[in-house]
Amino acid sequence: MTPNQPLRILGLDPGLRRTGWGVVTIDGMRLGHVAHGVIAPKETLPFAERLLFLFEEISQVIAAHRPDEAAVEETFVNVNASSTLKLGHARAACLIAPARAGLSVAEYAPTVVKKAVVGTGGADKAQVGFMIRRLLPTAGDTTSDAADALAVAIAHAHARKTRTIRGAA
Amino acid sequence: MTPNQPLRILGLDPGLRRTGWGVVTIDGMRLGHVAHGVIAPKETLPFAERLLFLFEEISQVIAAHRPDEAAVEETFVNVNASSTLKLGHARAACLIAPARAGLSVAEYAPTVVKKAVVGTGGADKAQVGFMIRRLLPTAGDTTSDAADALAVAIAHAHARKTRTIRGAA
Repeated sequence: MTPNQPLRILGLDPGLRRTGWGVVTIDGMRLGHVAHGVIAPKETLPFAERLLFLFEEISQVIAAHRPDEAAVEETFVNVNASSTLKLGHARAACLIAPARAGLSVAEYAPTVVKKAVVGTGGADKAQVGFMIRRLLPTAGDTTSDAADALAVAIAHAHARKTRTIRGAA
Repeated sequence: MTPNQPLRILGLDPGLRRTGWGVVTIDGMRLGHVAHGVIAPKETLPFAERLLFLFEEISQVIAAHRPDEAAVEETFVNVNASSTLKLGHARAACLIAPARAGLSVAEYAPTVVKKAVVGTGGADKAQVGFMIRRLLPTAGDTTSDAADALAVAIAHAHARKTRTIRGAA
């Protein structure tokens, strides 16, 4: 990649019912919106088929939008162990699909994502949505899953930039 | 599939450190051993790469041994939520790889697997290993992960047979 080429980042907010995805570009300090969406496997499908659907759809998003790197939101370990186990399955689809496409896959805790976008780790969904509309005005309206995915991508753009500046210092 | 063709079943015992796999045939009442092994992704790899390794290795086992159906062991929900989450990731690789290859994927609780192989749901690892050596004498020595995977395949063979007999009655 040449330094003048904007970097494309895929952000993923994993969930078995709904996985949000968003693709942004970062060009120096300049963020751009490429696309976003939500993947919702039919709940009537057998469990393995739901995971396969998630995996295939993420693979299609990658094929369509050609991100250079991926970032996935880390998960709060739930009090309900059975939900935690299911979420682990969904996250795996979000990790395997980009890794299989040859992308590096970074992981960010929700507090880090919120801090990067809103400025505080304790921000709520409405604040994240508000900042996504400000940072990516061409994105239009987003559901909270897609907004969270775009926020993960922005957090990764931010973390990369910080590393690059540190590296140059 | 013709009724005279033995059915090939892939059994998987998921784990992030070690995933056991085993392929058996069932021909009427007759069980046969095809192959078994253990997949152990390098623990130094990034998390997404470990999952990808698991996914790719399972895909290779399927390409090499051409099972007709797959069966995956269900997981005890651990007291440690972080372990539960990791195990969920590993199980997802075991579910997505066969689903992607077009196989049906059945899931069995550990007690069901033990009952099918040893006769009691409370059997220990040594008893499962002993019965695997008796049921599949050509399998030779197996580690407990591979023995558990072969046991899952046998449990599926047993469950299918029961369904077929019930269906015929």
